[in-house]
Parts: sequence; structure tokens; C-alpha cells
Amino acid sequence: MAQKPSIPKGTRDFNPEQVAKRNYIFNTIQAQFERFGFQPIETPSFENSDTLMGKYGDEGDRLIFKILNSGDFLNKVNDTLYAEKDSGRITPKISEKALRYDLTVPFARYVVQHQNEIEFPFKRYQMQPVWRADRPQKGRFREFYQCDADVVGSTSLWQEVEFVQLYDAVFTALKLDGATIKINNRKILSGIAEVIGASDKLIDFTVALDKLDKIGEEKVKEEMLSKGIPQTGIDALQPLFSLSGDFATQINQLKTILNTSDEGKKGIEELEFIDAAISELGLSTAKLQLDVTLARGLNYYTGAIFEVSAPEGVAMGSIGGGGRYDDLTGIFGLKNVSGVGISFGLDRIYLVLEELNLFPETVTKNIDVLFINFGDKEALFSMKAIKELRANNINAELYPDAAKMKKQMNHANKRNIPYVVIVGEKEIETNTYALKHMVSGEQSSVTLTQLVSQLS
Amino acid sequence: MAQKPSIPKGTRDFNPEQVAKRNYIFNTIQAQFERFGFQPIETPSFENSDTLMGKYGDEGDRLIFKILNSGDFLNKVNDTLYAEKDSGRITPKISEKALRYDLTVPFARYVVQHQNEIEFPFKRYQMQPVWRADRPQKGRFREFYQCDADVVGSTSLWQEVEFVQLYDAVFTALKLDGATIKINNRKILSGIAEVIGASDKLIDFTVALDKLDKIGEEKVKEEMLSKGIPQTGIDALQPLFSLSGDFATQINQLKTILNTSDEGKKGIEELEFIDAAISELGLSTAKLQLDVTLARGLNYYTGAIFEVSAPEGVAMGSIGGGGRYDDLTGIFGLKNVSGVGISFGLDRIYLVLEELNLFPETVTKNIDVLFINFGDKEALFSMKAIKELRANNINAELYPDAAKMKKQMNHANKRNIPYVVIVGEKEIETNTYALKHMVSGEQSSVTLTQLVSQLS
Repeated sequence: MAQKPSIPKGTRDFNPEQVAKRNYIFNTIQAQFERFGFQPIETPSFENSDTLMGKYGDEGDRLIFKILNSGDFLNKVNDTLYAEKDSGRITPKISEKALRYDLTVPFARYVVQHQNEIEFPFKRYQMQPVWRADRPQKGRFREFYQCDADVVGSTSLWQEVEFVQLYDAVFTALKLDGATIKINNRKILSGIAEVIGASDKLIDFTVALDKLDKIGEEKVKEEMLSKGIPQTGIDALQPLFSLSGDFATQINQLKTILNTSDEGKKGIEELEFIDAAISELGLSTAKLQLDVTLARGLNYYTGAIFEVSAPEGVAMGSIGGGGRYDDLTGIFGLKNVSGVGISFGLDRIYLVLEELNLFPETVTKNIDVLFINFGDKEALFSMKAIKELRANNINAELYPDAAKMKKQMNHANKRNIPYVVIVGEKEIETNTYALKHMVSGEQSSVTLTQLVSQLS
Repeated sequence: MAQKPSIPKGTRDFNPEQVAKRNYIFNTIQAQFERFGFQPIETPSFENSDTLMGKYGDEGDRLIFKILNSGDFLNKVNDTLYAEKDSGRITPKISEKALRYDLTVPFARYVVQHQNEIEFPFKRYQMQPVWRADRPQKGRFREFYQCDADVVGSTSLWQEVEFVQLYDAVFTALKLDGATIKINNRKILSGIAEVIGASDKLIDFTVALDKLDKIGEEKVKEEMLSKGIPQTGIDALQPLFSLSGDFATQINQLKTILNTSDEGKKGIEELEFIDAAISELGLSTAKLQLDVTLARGLNYYTGAIFEVSAPEGVAMGSIGGGGRYDDLTGIFGLKNVSGVGISFGLDRIYLVLEELNLFPETVTKNIDVLFINFGDKEALFSMKAIKELRANNINAELYPDAAKMKKQMNHANKRNIPYVVIVGEKEIETNTYALKHMVSGEQSSVTLTQLVSQLS
């Protein structure tokens, strides 16, 4: 009995149309990465487990896919440990490799391992799949691509400016007008926590604040209270909930709130630098917006924090994010290497482009012309023309079998092939080709030279 | 103590130059795939274990990387089985997914799973990594890419003709002149085995014959004898060892040898068809050669067998291979779907292009121009020009820090950036840019318009 074929949950097959659309996004992002001077690297799909474990918190450790050792892997497990039958404790004994969970940790590992070959500051991009044993749900997969650009080896804020421009350039190239690039700074968050006397609760504080959009002001305050942030502190926060106006106006309000925090003031200074530069340089289609509730990935961001929202009216989470981390490579023993980077969410960008009908029609273009097959003699005559067409960059093919004409025409229809060429006795005798347009039905008799020029 | 970073054996990091060169090969192959009417699909990196296991023989089963189930995986193992501490028997209980071992089995699974959406004949290409727990050695990795093109749903020999042309087109596009496309047919091998009375030993016979190039005639005969092929049969083989001349001449010699085998004669007929068509159509840089010792992947090939050798003088194994398999999808319950396909060996093609110095210089081209950074005022002025350059498809960047001039110039040198632009007080005042060519040292003062046109 044959198996009924299926794929693991949370994974996907991509058909030709989907691959073409995904490649359109990849190619657009890649072109801008290179325009901005980023260079590609690739790292292995699996890393040594100790490279990955402990880098993403307990939750991350659980979600990392582990690869079973080859051969008689139980042989390495001593009997006492084996007798415990403890999955957690046995794992490191039977699995030494794990699938990449993101691109940042492998990049940090790469930088440290190859530090002597790398010319710093090093601007790299990487577009590769990552794997997470997350519960699959709408828009969340167990295998998905990340598209990252990072710079390491410079603390210059011009990098942040450049990343804002890069987001703008990519979304403009994708014709996705109106993306909002939200920016915040870890130092602002630290400053606020300091001002309200909750420095020791920075994580709890920011996790709660991060939910403002979703659960509203009251619930955020409740959560803060429940985490032990004092009511006086929460009262002091009040101006934060009513921040309004443009970037500069909000910055001015923040200055009042943070006037007793040196770190907060440093954060303001950084944001002002970026805003001033972007105002001078201009953005094409995106807008830059200050969002002091933005806290993503706070565990390692130390400066700027970025997140991009799709244009208004499109219900979609963030389509990109990133930030600065001052000690990217410290976990692998290379200290004082600051990094800053951004990521593009391929799957969500795909859904947004689909929803807004922004994929160019040419993206899913198939072949240009199909030659109908009436038998080997006609096929050979056709193949000579096909060879010539291909040499002229025209995508052409022969229907492989001398099937019924109707079947072959149906095939052309189903594949949306715009033209067919019909070669019979008469055409061979007169050295011509009957070129038929599939939509209009128009048909004409042409020479090979005409065929090439008409299909070019 | 920080970890000393490393990657698992048999895997590789790719630096920017290597990625660029690999992408050059991928893009060249992809362009020809599409020129010939093949469409891309992608399948998940891991499949359900039962999709892969048992498809590649015992050796293959061993070499498949298995993924450990998430959570408390030992919980599912009953105590009796657990007590055996048998790695082989416990594996299916603690691992339900496995990394792709090749692209052919996932493709077969895809075709069966999506048969109702697919318009046959279906010409698909796929370029994705595969993983094998092989012993790593020179040129053999545990993670490597396969680049496959296959057609399913037609038994037409025009497909085989097209694959010969496709090989020729790709190697021509890569400027890799003089590749040899070797062709054989399973039916020829079956016919020979039949004629020498060794039909029941077809595999042993072909495995031995396949080694002719490596170990020579005498050792091949010894191996056949040791496998139980009778001396009379081996004697009958003698003409095979002295086949010579061009394709047609060898075919004629084969006709004599195989004149009592219907299957052998069918194989000859197929080879003659392909040779005749290719002779009529011509090849650009490759040559087609009959090789009756060719037996690769015999387990599932049923018709044509292909293998490509690098140009003479380059010591390298095959750089491509493929063939026809009449029952590709039968293992997944869809009968009578014939497939034929070829594969390109990316890593070996890379090494050949490297050895013959065939990578175009532009492939590893980096950015076009670096702007020297003298401080924020100058940087902002520079960023305005950089924005303009990028809008004109010129890859440009600012050195992020106002470091010493010498350090910045060194950076440009080390990255082989052809031009630098220097912006100081004077340039800002006069609204000009000092453009310096790094090799010649020539320097000129230009306007923004001139800058764009000179760098275009």
C-alpha cells in the first residue's frame, strides 16, 4: 500500500507561481542591499548545538530543532543517565547539531571565526531559511526565510540613518507605498524606567509598554502594577501615553519627561541625529515615526530599535524590524564589536503585495511560445527554430508528444502560454511557421527571422 | 570562558566572494532552465521520515539526517523498547522528520501530493540544499546544493534530446568549453547482461563495468568472475571493451553484440534517435559521447543515463548526471508517470571554473565608490550625493566613522573599491566632489551630475 504523501506541519511546498513571486521579493531586496554596499555571506543550515543553545532564552532553546547524531548514538549515553529517561538531559548526549534558529547568532559566530579575514566595518547581508519548532499558525511557519542586513565594527549613527533609507529604498522598489518605519531607542526605555523608579524592572516595564497598541492604556498599567511597578511610577508615566505630534514635537515632550536621566538624554540625542539626517535627505515613499512603546528584542538591543508597519489599511503585523546591539560577538569571545541591523519579513511582505495586487505581471511569466508536435519530422523542424529562439533569449519549448492537437492547445491555455507555433507538412515545404496568438486567435505564416523578431 | 566558534564538519561558511561566484553559477543555470521552459518549485528542508526512509537503500537510510522530536520525546517510547537501548529501533520513535537527502524523492512526493493542480507534462527545476551524513572528504560535504531539472508525464525521447541541449547551453553560457556529455541506456546494459547470460546479476555486472575507467579491464573481469558471472559470459563481453570510433560506429558494433536481445535493440534505437536529433541540431561547445560502461543510479534509471565530464585536462569527477526513470512516483501511489531529468554539480562546477579562471571579473564586483568621512557636516553632504548615485544604480557608501584618512583609504584598498570621493570644507563651499581613482591615483573635482555620469 503506497503512502499518502504529506509534509510536516508548519512547512510548505512552493509552486512555480509562488517561487517566482518570492524570488521577485528576494531579488528586489538583494539589489538594494548591494546598492547600499552590503555583501552576501552564507552559513550552514545546522550549527554545533553549543553555538545556538542558550542564546535565545529557555523558550528559544526549546524551539530549536535538534539533529539526532548518526550511527549508534545511544552508545554514548551512560547507563545511569539513560535510566533516568529524561528527554531534556539526554538531548545533549544524542544530538550535537541543531538547525539555525535565526541569522544573527550564526553571523556573530561567523564574524568571530573569520575575524582575521574580515575588513571592518563589515556590512553583510544574508537571506537564508531558519527553523523553529513553534506551534504553527496563520502566517507562522516552522521553516521560513530571514533577509538580514547588518553592519559590525562601527558605532556611527550614520548606519542607523542608512538603514532607514534602506527600508525606504526596498519598499519603494516593491511599489509598497506608505510603509511606516517606527524607531525607538533602548536608552529612552532605560531612561523612562529610571525616571519612574523601575530600573530593576526594565524588562517587565517594556514588555508591558510594548502591548499598548494591542491591549490599551488601562491594561498596560494593570500589567505594570502586577509586576510590582509602583503606582507613583505609573503616574509619572502618564505623559508618555499622550505623546503626540510629529517626530520633533514628541522628542520635545520626551525631553521634559527624561530631563533627569542622562541615559534618556543620550537616547534623545541619538534619535534627533537620525531624524535630522532623514529630514535633510528625504524618504521616497516611507515615513519615519517615533514610537516610544517599541521594545522588540530588548534583550540584546542597546541603541536604536526599528520596526516597520505595512501601509495603513493592510491588517498585518510588522514586516521588518531590527536595531543596534553593542556586544554582538561577545558571546563568542570577541568584545566591543557593535552591530546594527535590520530584517525583512519575507512571508508577510508576500501577503501584503498579494493583498494590494502589487506583484508585476511579468513576475509569473512562463514560457513565450509552445511548438505543437505533429510527429518526429515536424518536431525536428520545430526544434531547429526553438534553438534559434532560445539563442535570442526567448523561452520556447516543444510539446514532447505528438498528442491530439486539442490536448496540446489546452496545455498552452492552462499554462497561459501566449503563443503557439504550428508546424505541418506545408510549413516544412515552405520553410515557414504558423504563429498563433492564444488570446486573439490571430494566426500568421512567418519565416524564422520574422518569428524571432515577433517574439522578441 | 567564551566558546571557540566552529562549524560542524562537512559544512561550510561562504564569504562574499564565494557567495557571488556561487550565485553566478546558480543564475546561469536558472536562466537556461527557464529558457527551456522549466518552472521552479521548492520543497521543505525536512520531510516526514517515512517519505524519505527506504528510498535510497540501507546506506541512504543511514546517511539521512534525522531531526529529534520536540518536547518530552522519550515519553512516547515504551519501556520495553527503551530498555533495549537500540539506537536503530528507537530512532523512529523519537524522530519523525528528516532532512532532505536529494531533490528527486521530494519532487516525486510533490507531484503525487499536488497531482490535481499540476498540468502535465510538468517541467520543473529545483535548486536547494540537501544533507547527507557522509564521511566528509575533499569535495564531499554534508550540506550541498543540487540543481535539478526534470520532466514528468511524457515518455517522449525529445526530452532526452532537450536535456543534451540544456547541458550544452549551460556549459556554453558558463564559457566552459569542451564538456563531454556521456550517454548510455539502461536497456543496453540489460541487453548485454541478457546476452552474456547474467540477467539475474545485472546490478553486479553494471557495478563492475562502471569501474572500467578507474580499475581497468582485467580488474573488472576479475570482479565479474568473483560475483559469479561465468567466464563464457565475460568472454562474450570482449567486444565491449574494445568499442571505438564515433557514436554511430560504436552503435553499429553494439548492434552486432546485442542482435539477440530485444531490449538491447530497443536501447540502441533510443540512442540512435537522440544522436540523430543532436547531429541535426548541433551543439555549441559540448560533445555527446556514447559510454556503454555508464551505469550511475542504475537502481532507478530505466532508459537514458547521462553523465557529464569536465573538459579534458581538468581532473574532476562528473559535473552532472541524470537519466530516465519510468516509475518515479509509484512509491507514492501514482503509477505510470515517467520522468527524466538531469542534475548539475554546483560544487564541482565551481572548482572547474576556478581552476580554468572562468569566473567573470564583474562577478565579485563590490561597491563602486566609497565616500571618505571627515565629520557629520561633510557626511551629510556626502549622503546627499550617495542617495543620488544609488538612485542611478551605482553602488555607493559612506565610511561610517570620521576615522583617520589613511584608515579609510586602506579600507577602500582592501575592499578593492575602484573610486573614493573626498568631501571637505572646500567641496561643500563649491558644491563639488573630489573623485579619486584608487589605482591610478588620478583625482578630479566634479559636480554631482558629473559624478553620476562618470561612475555610471
